[in-house]
Amino acid sequence: MSPRRLIVVSNRGPVSYSRDADGRRVAGRGGGGLATALRGLLARHDVTWIASALSEEDRAVAEEAQGGLDEASGRLLLLAHDPVAYEGYYNVVSNPLLWFTQHYLWGLGSAPVLDARFADAWEEGYVSVNQVFADAVVVELDNDPEAAVFFHDYHLYLAPRFVRDARPGATLAHFVHIPWPQSDAWTVLPPAVREAVHDGLLANDIVGVHTDRWRRNLFASACELLGAASDGTGGIAYRGRTTTLVSRPISVACSEFEALAESPEVREAERRLEQSRPERLVLRVDRTDPSKNVVRGFLAFGLLLDRHPEWRGRAAMLALLNPSRENVAEYADYRKAIEREAAAVNERHGHDGYRPIDVRIADDFTLSVAAYRQYDVLLVNPVFDGLNLVAKEGPLVNRRDGVVVLSENAGAHDELAEWVVTVNPFDVLGQAEALHDALAMDEAERGRRSRALAEHVRSHDLEWWIGGLEELLERSSA
Amino acid sequence: MSPRRLIVVSNRGPVSYSRDADGRRVAGRGGGGLATALRGLLARHDVTWIASALSEEDRAVAEEAQGGLDEASGRLLLLAHDPVAYEGYYNVVSNPLLWFTQHYLWGLGSAPVLDARFADAWEEGYVSVNQVFADAVVVELDNDPEAAVFFHDYHLYLAPRFVRDARPGATLAHFVHIPWPQSDAWTVLPPAVREAVHDGLLANDIVGVHTDRWRRNLFASACELLGAASDGTGGIAYRGRTTTLVSRPISVACSEFEALAESPEVREAERRLEQSRPERLVLRVDRTDPSKNVVRGFLAFGLLLDRHPEWRGRAAMLALLNPSRENVAEYADYRKAIEREAAAVNERHGHDGYRPIDVRIADDFTLSVAAYRQYDVLLVNPVFDGLNLVAKEGPLVNRRDGVVVLSENAGAHDELAEWVVTVNPFDVLGQAEALHDALAMDEAERGRRSRALAEHVRSHDLEWWIGGLEELLERSSA
Repeated sequence: MSPRRLIVVSNRGPVSYSRDADGRRVAGRGGGGLATALRGLLARHDVTWIASALSEEDRAVAEEAQGGLDEASGRLLLLAHDPVAYEGYYNVVSNPLLWFTQHYLWGLGSAPVLDARFADAWEEGYVSVNQVFADAVVVELDNDPEAAVFFHDYHLYLAPRFVRDARPGATLAHFVHIPWPQSDAWTVLPPAVREAVHDGLLANDIVGVHTDRWRRNLFASACELLGAASDGTGGIAYRGRTTTLVSRPISVACSEFEALAESPEVREAERRLEQSRPERLVLRVDRTDPSKNVVRGFLAFGLLLDRHPEWRGRAAMLALLNPSRENVAEYADYRKAIEREAAAVNERHGHDGYRPIDVRIADDFTLSVAAYRQYDVLLVNPVFDGLNLVAKEGPLVNRRDGVVVLSENAGAHDELAEWVVTVNPFDVLGQAEALHDALAMDEAERGRRSRALAEHVRSHDLEWWIGGLEELLERSSA
Repeated sequence: MSPRRLIVVSNRGPVSYSRDADGRRVAGRGGGGLATALRGLLARHDVTWIASALSEEDRAVAEEAQGGLDEASGRLLLLAHDPVAYEGYYNVVSNPLLWFTQHYLWGLGSAPVLDARFADAWEEGYVSVNQVFADAVVVELDNDPEAAVFFHDYHLYLAPRFVRDARPGATLAHFVHIPWPQSDAWTVLPPAVREAVHDGLLANDIVGVHTDRWRRNLFASACELLGAASDGTGGIAYRGRTTTLVSRPISVACSEFEALAESPEVREAERRLEQSRPERLVLRVDRTDPSKNVVRGFLAFGLLLDRHPEWRGRAAMLALLNPSRENVAEYADYRKAIEREAAAVNERHGHDGYRPIDVRIADDFTLSVAAYRQYDVLLVNPVFDGLNLVAKEGPLVNRRDGVVVLSENAGAHDELAEWVVTVNPFDVLGQAEALHDALAMDEAERGRRSRALAEHVRSHDLEWWIGGLEELLERSSA
């Protein structure tokens, strides 16, 4: 265990509480890939985790004791926010506004429209919830001023500045798990808002992102929007301090994930899948998020069948889609578009016993892992994506020398380019041809690439990611 | 007259031919702001102008003599393109693809979808029409190898490379009149396409854009996409040559424009306008283009009336909108949205004798100039805009010390910031408050600003713009 205490701060915690049938309080695993990834920190550090109370029972825990106890060694402090403030913070500013901005998803001719609802959600929601997080961090720091604070993601851009103003000597780090867009994209936010976002982030000693591309974008946008400047050694100088910007791609907890892939539940799901699978299985696993580019993936699969009739009846696509943010209008519309386009391809090319695209919209991780084992081609074509863990999880456990077709705008592409078939996410003709190339690739080449992918993931797993960040945190201690 | 012969190359020429009622050929002024602006070159140079034949009669001129004669001293060479090639070049690649990409207008979750139609339009349309332009330039250069070639805008990114390959010693310049977006936005185009665009442009000796913002973006995207690099003196080194990147904002032909504003037609239109004008006139003059942000402007005007009831019945908006590209689906949809939102505001706040928003969708330049003389507030709120000449034409001839409310994403903002009320184009609440501030501004301040704006435009007029570019062309002669 590392000597230094960590205060981890993220909107969603590692566990969420509920009541079981007998009315007893139970702690379940919090959803979301981020919480899963960070859970590994608990085994390695003395951790206090600060997160939002999300469930009714979370709020009860928060109110009883200003906190709760985590399953492992850590302490979990849940914050019960004002519901109106949380709504503005989460469902207006964080999603869709920041998410869409950072993934370049706005059609700027018509959206977003920043009106009084946005102004209130910013001031009364995002700013005030970030202040609540910062206040809780300050209390923890006063108990242990040597602790390092580790903020996560786009919900918490302002909290580091609030903490820095209150405790100038604190060690603060922040990891942004989504893309960092270039400066023109930030003009979607009014000057005071985009400057506050950058100013808050640069209150940290260390800011991490997944790839060098996002790191360069952050460096440039901070210089342009705040007048920050290079400190000459790769850091960024601003308001009399230096912030180190690092890129380090997150990864999979490999041994745990490989064990899961061999579990009876997954093997059983795999057996069922095997009974119905086509000769060639093209898989995609995603949330129903417009950034994931599901619709263009279906268009590409339809084009593949149009242009390469040899795959009709032999290759089929399985789309395992986890429903996401369905109370946000943009997401509800996108789900409808997904269903519409799959139906159109099935109408055009399906016949008795052959359904080209099998869409399953459900939260079924066991099935996803089973399908990872079975794919011949894994299509990962996001519009933009901070990293994309599917592109690492799949190759780690696949058993058929499957080929990964990967978007050049996924963060993971920087690491994996050499062993994947690269596609442009907007070019559906190119994606159709890439699917054909992947399906037609000879066995030796498939084997070489899939082994290299799995080896890369194993040698750059979650432990490696955490270790690198810990080293930086130790170096930047007071 | 400058000694050097110029070969001006633009898609639309300075004149377009038709037949009058008696069947005689007549030369009318070509539409489009660019052709109008460049017409000034004819008086100063021995010019050969190469442009596309657009009308039936243009095609007849092109076929008769491989050319036609211009009204002034220049020679006009019209190119009759293959209609299918021109359709792909103009209505698929140039608009909407390049226009939307360069104005950041795509909602990338769903558009664009680059399919076989795009691939054909690129290869058989954009590439081949650019080759036709380049071939015509090479013929002209062989007649006069000392002539300088001056390409214009986003229709012609590839032609400079084709000319450079054929005549390595030629003097080539290019002016891009629309925004240059940052490198991530260019990933909307497949790698080979975006690289060809940059490669073609860097085949020039000089590339001009309106503002330093677009110049920096071009510099950075060329470095990132092509591996080009700074030559150490502000130029960009690539493929063994240096390209000078300059920013120089285009402007108005002031004396001509001021004379027009005093013409009997404009004065008559102004008299009619004066009889019906509200106490305070808020004006916008635009094409019906999603980049112009008409709908958010109406939302903002509605919000102004919601929040500041003192302007109800007293202030009204006149929107003079030139219909644009109505055969492109995105533009037809946008026109409908414009009409819908104006109707919603009029429904909410209109009453007998008071119509808050008066939308006129027509090509009526005389009325626009008359309205320029009459506005109290000129709203220019584009999403993104290469320059925006409305923001210069208005203040030049306005007679009421009108205030300009200007988007921070209009190229003209770089020059005019000091004297305008700046708005963020996405922030309709901010625009509503800016309109209020502009309407409520005291007389002395209005006068000071409007005089400063007019003086700036007069001292940086179209002659100044052309003169600066001529100087660069002379310096880069072989």
